[in-house]
Amino acid sequence: MKDLKNFFQPGSIAVIGASRNPNKVGHVLFKNIIEGGFKHEVFPINPNTDLILNKKVYPSILKVEKKVDLAIIAVPAESVLKTVQECNKKNIKNLLIITSGFKEIGRVDLEEKLQIFLKKNKINCIGVNCLGIYDSYNKLDALFIPRYRLKRPEPGTISFVCQSGAIGAAILDIATEQGHKFSKFISYGNATDIDESDLLEYLSHDEKTKVICLYIEGIKNGKKFFETIKKVSKIKPIIALKGGLTKQGSQAALSHTGALAGDKEVFFGIFAQTKVIKTDSLEEMFNTASLIEKNLSFKGNRIQIITNGGGYGILSIDEIAQSKNLALASLSEKTIKELRKNLPKIIKIHNPLDLLGDATTERYKVALENCIKDKNIDAILLIVLYQTPLITTDIVEIISESHMETKKPIIIVSTGAEFTQTLSRALEKNGLPTFTYPTNAINAIDKVVWYQEKMKSKEKL
Amino acid sequence: MKDLKNFFQPGSIAVIGASRNPNKVGHVLFKNIIEGGFKHEVFPINPNTDLILNKKVYPSILKVEKKVDLAIIAVPAESVLKTVQECNKKNIKNLLIITSGFKEIGRVDLEEKLQIFLKKNKINCIGVNCLGIYDSYNKLDALFIPRYRLKRPEPGTISFVCQSGAIGAAILDIATEQGHKFSKFISYGNATDIDESDLLEYLSHDEKTKVICLYIEGIKNGKKFFETIKKVSKIKPIIALKGGLTKQGSQAALSHTGALAGDKEVFFGIFAQTKVIKTDSLEEMFNTASLIEKNLSFKGNRIQIITNGGGYGILSIDEIAQSKNLALASLSEKTIKELRKNLPKIIKIHNPLDLLGDATTERYKVALENCIKDKNIDAILLIVLYQTPLITTDIVEIISESHMETKKPIIIVSTGAEFTQTLSRALEKNGLPTFTYPTNAINAIDKVVWYQEKMKSKEKL
Repeated sequence: MKDLKNFFQPGSIAVIGASRNPNKVGHVLFKNIIEGGFKHEVFPINPNTDLILNKKVYPSILKVEKKVDLAIIAVPAESVLKTVQECNKKNIKNLLIITSGFKEIGRVDLEEKLQIFLKKNKINCIGVNCLGIYDSYNKLDALFIPRYRLKRPEPGTISFVCQSGAIGAAILDIATEQGHKFSKFISYGNATDIDESDLLEYLSHDEKTKVICLYIEGIKNGKKFFETIKKVSKIKPIIALKGGLTKQGSQAALSHTGALAGDKEVFFGIFAQTKVIKTDSLEEMFNTASLIEKNLSFKGNRIQIITNGGGYGILSIDEIAQSKNLALASLSEKTIKELRKNLPKIIKIHNPLDLLGDATTERYKVALENCIKDKNIDAILLIVLYQTPLITTDIVEIISESHMETKKPIIIVSTGAEFTQTLSRALEKNGLPTFTYPTNAINAIDKVVWYQEKMKSKEKL
Repeated sequence: MKDLKNFFQPGSIAVIGASRNPNKVGHVLFKNIIEGGFKHEVFPINPNTDLILNKKVYPSILKVEKKVDLAIIAVPAESVLKTVQECNKKNIKNLLIITSGFKEIGRVDLEEKLQIFLKKNKINCIGVNCLGIYDSYNKLDALFIPRYRLKRPEPGTISFVCQSGAIGAAILDIATEQGHKFSKFISYGNATDIDESDLLEYLSHDEKTKVICLYIEGIKNGKKFFETIKKVSKIKPIIALKGGLTKQGSQAALSHTGALAGDKEVFFGIFAQTKVIKTDSLEEMFNTASLIEKNLSFKGNRIQIITNGGGYGILSIDEIAQSKNLALASLSEKTIKELRKNLPKIIKIHNPLDLLGDATTERYKVALENCIKDKNIDAILLIVLYQTPLITTDIVEIISESHMETKKPIIIVSTGAEFTQTLSRALEKNGLPTFTYPTNAINAIDKVVWYQEKMKSKEKL
């Protein structure tokens, strides 16, 4: 296993190609590292200037006297090899190379020379042609995108490994806005040295990472990848999205990260043989992550629906009935009796449990309490449409308290504008996963149940 | 065809069961009608009070001396028939009955008696067991949900016919927040008298309606429904979502709106034989509506992708290659030549046209101008990830101007937090459809192209 610790917890950083010009990658990178709150020393390197953001600039990495753990390189492609050689001379063995203009534009020659040098001198390198890395715990913001354009996430348990830089940026931005919390974000571009397998293996041992999201286009070494995900997916869930599934998409991937995207069937075969959670879209990836992030543990696959929207109940039943891994719960005799006693007669006691358009907070309380106790139910899909007039806002406390007192997963679905979104955010803060539509929630539950069942079946063997 | 004009443009309204108690449906309804800005007379009816919201209350509908075009009824289920009889005595032939507690809870007897009376006396009735109606042009807000919980949409071209009340409310709320504009919203509940077919037929002749969204669980009269959608879908696009597709979902539908949900294959067969646009989720329904709403006209199905995120380009190619009705455009020789001349050499001129992570606004301008001119391209999927640093905000004007000057559909995909969302909203205001993920955009384009091709093939016959 490659030791990548110095990429995420370096004791000092050099930014080679740091610039005074705010439009240059080398400026934005340096600025973000400083403003991101990195606690150790940062050395800007540039032969043509003395001061950047009030920091003393060194003309060359060789002029830095102190030890440098990580060099971040943002010089033109033609100068990269020379820069790397200088870093080697200074005994810097960890490089993050942002620079593009290699294999992905046909400059295979440039990339191969670099690759040979890295290998020969046992240098670890992330990049080339990448967006950078972000570590929320160590406040290391080595991304070349301005902070006003891309929100930085709070510390959390998701690590996101992304071959494509722009996808990574866009998704990190929206996922952060949606309240997801991240441990690490790694854009690894052309994978000239460190590839997806190295990163997955490292993250599998990273205490701060509980779930790995992975966007890949192609892989460099199929056998290594297969062995790695087989091993890692037993330790931590990997949620994967594959770009370049079709012949046409695969051709496009070739000119993007220079990756041979490979055969669709081969990839799906590999995912199926391991415990990798396969998703079909980025939205699905983070919907799934948001359940795992919340540490939900499904004892089984039997889902009970509680709703105040009859139609949502029906659509949810349809989704569950058509899902791959979920089943509809059947209420126990005891629960039926209790609900009959404590809910208005007009309410049919079955699945979905439709509390009707005039549902009160009290009805939800009764329904929730009894379904939590019921051993025939493994998880509750709680649909709360706040538009109906008799629901009071203290339903947030009622749901949150129930959630605190049980290990049974409760997943919330609420659709609506500000009023709804405010209440959903309050539930999220209290640790409950919330979704806008039943489809998205059920799809994510389906995937997580699949993974957890697969883990259990392994344990039994 | 039933004349439903008085439901949407009544000259006067009575609210029977109007109440002083803010928690009662009859209060919220009356309040919303008043505060919604309805311009004609509204008579509250209640035997137990004199004044509601400073309006004189009548003890009985029979005490109102003026002509009443529409009576909205929110009295207990047991009193509904008597109330309807009084309305008939006063010669009111249009009733909106909000009250629930009929067929959907097993009181088939109550509903049948009502139904017989309505038929015998030729009374038009929407409901029972419904949320009400909303007409944005006539400022008629006859929904029983408080305005702070449910946003009311601005006048637009979508009419939404929804069997389920709570779904309708939730979706109207979120769709409004997302900027969709509506003509009419109709929750029709148990369809005791007026059913989905009557509403579709009426809307097909409604000048203010350009696209109809339809959520149905079951239908009352299959033959009538088939004949109606066959006719209506030739005049206006109908985007349909069917609840109760599975055996289990169908059973749930029975206790929701008392509807027999019917066989999945039968429904899909009916949709396929007509021009109804079938969707699989509410999100998909409104994504599709948002394209039709913008009046896009696709001359063909060949899509060109322009992007600054390579990964998004690849995922989009995958989606289009796997779609049912779309094809990838091939740039003409002339366009290739122009783009080669005017874009940096590093950029590969093909589909997707990846302007790279350092894309400038100028690159987008060049790409857009040339693709608009290219006759090999029927529509442009324009992916703009605003996280990359060299894009300036004047890209909004550049895209908007291009859009003004061409009839070729330009569909925008941008993913991100506030910065991105602000720019997306600006584009939406200028008439461009914007989506968060490529998947959603391509899925909606696929459906609209299917509909427009089907309409064209008809014209040719």
